[in-house]
Amino acid sequence: MIENRIRFRVRYVETDQMGIAHHSNYFAWFECGRTELMRDLGYPYTQMEKEGILMPIVNVACKYFRPAHYDDLLELRTMVKELPRARITLNYIITKVETGEILAEGETTLAFLNEKRRPTRAPEKFLNTLRSNFK
Amino acid sequence: MIENRIRFRVRYVETDQMGIAHHSNYFAWFECGRTELMRDLGYPYTQMEKEGILMPIVNVACKYFRPAHYDDLLELRTMVKELPRARITLNYIITKVETGEILAEGETTLAFLNEKRRPTRAPEKFLNTLRSNFK
Amino acid sequence: MIENRIRFRVRYVETDQMGIAHHSNYFAWFECGRTELMRDLGYPYTQMEKEGILMPIVNVACKYFRPAHYDDLLELRTMVKELPRARITLNYIITKVETGEILAEGETTLAFLNEKRRPTRAPEKFLNTLRSNFK
Amino acid sequence: MIENRIRFRVRYVETDQMGIAHHSNYFAWFECGRTELMRDLGYPYTQMEKEGILMPIVNVACKYFRPAHYDDLLELRTMVKELPRARITLNYIITKVETGEILAEGETTLAFLNEKRRPTRAPEKFLNTLRSNFK
Repeated sequence: MIENRIRFRVRYVETDQMGIAHHSNYFAWFECGRTELMRDLGYPYTQMEKEGILMPIVNVACKYFRPAHYDDLLELRTMVKELPRARITLNYIITKVETGEILAEGETTLAFLNEKRRPTRAPEKFLNTLRSNFK
Repeated sequence: MIENRIRFRVRYVETDQMGIAHHSNYFAWFECGRTELMRDLGYPYTQMEKEGILMPIVNVACKYFRPAHYDDLLELRTMVKELPRARITLNYIITKVETGEILAEGETTLAFLNEKRRPTRAPEKFLNTLRSNFK
Repeated sequence: MIENRIRFRVRYVETDQMGIAHHSNYFAWFECGRTELMRDLGYPYTQMEKEGILMPIVNVACKYFRPAHYDDLLELRTMVKELPRARITLNYIITKVETGEILAEGETTLAFLNEKRRPTRAPEKFLNTLRSNFK
Repeated sequence: MIENRIRFRVRYVETDQMGIAHHSNYFAWFECGRTELMRDLGYPYTQMEKEGILMPIVNVACKYFRPAHYDDLLELRTMVKELPRARITLNYIITKVETGEILAEGETTLAFLNEKRRPTRAPEKFLNTLRSNFK
């Protein structure tokens, strides 16, 4: 498994009139988790796009156990549990730092597209990076 | 089944640097579908909240088959396939009007919370409205 | 002056915990107004980008007089008051349809960039379109 | 003057198909700046709302000099230049950390509303906090 943890606070703009963070924001947070996981691996997503590979989302899911509120300090754990082939799946767990409670669990699957926007395999260098960091 | 259809265009702000609508926006669109489905039933969501019932999201999923682009005219079909008890599940299909292609399919499950934010059953009036419109 | 009017409802995701539409959304709405104004002129913004011209924002302002709430039906009036040269300025007025109250007034200025992302003049065809529709 | 600085990275979701951060996000970032400025003063905005005071936006403006891109590390400087009375004005400067370039300058004015959502003066405790930190 490859794992990354980031911490961030819920923004005011992310709340809705129910007084909680709107569920759609969790996918933006997961994206931040992917960004930092890839930076930590030494293979930032900006480099992926520079090499002509796009990673569009093909599949997402999220379960919400408890609400997040404005200014809550959250921890997001981003995990790659399996080496990718044509697609890569990441798993996410969001906890509230103050209480340790798990607020949500998510999963996203991304494809790899080449410059013609056709499905392609994950770049060999990226796979090697994942392999050498896999524990 | 209860069904509603709305049409809308992809906003510029909803695109990302991949040149497509960001996946998180689909959940905002699904919410618009729920809003219009409930208005059509004569039981708008604003009334639900006035009666002290909140309907937070507990579960979402979406599969993305093809990208949506800025200014694309989309049709969203929102469906209730089963009468709710403690929770209500809605299903969604998004098609591109110009081509008829299905772009995405989603599902969301919502709970009912009372004024103390404790889980409660769907209001009887709401259930009756659903029952009398179920086909 | 060139003018366009659109109507839309405030989305749930656009509200914040104050129970009103978050102020940042007004700029997304203004963008929808620009999109429809240009479509009405027969020169949709998608065509502008296809011709290699980007129109980034250089300047925005908005005054908020009264809040907008979830599901409020709003009318947005988008106006071009002067023919553009290097830049184009648009003005906006948002009213609540039910009451006729003015909720907000905004202004945005956009530049024209060529394919090298250098400032350029507005395309001649676009200027002619504006001129022939100016009243 | 009272001043606060925060650093953050541009999120992928914040980009648009022009390949730059969409202008509406700057107002969400300014809000983060306000949040951290108030936390640093020992008077977090969450406390303000707990005391029954809301601070809605009445006026915003922003000038965009250069674009921000995905994953850019930005620094936001949030400033209170004058002690508030019925309203408080904050100024913002966003720079790109890597180059030191100023990307944007903004201003927001907020009102103070009491529990009946009527305009009120800034709470005396908040004013005292500002006064004792003013340099």
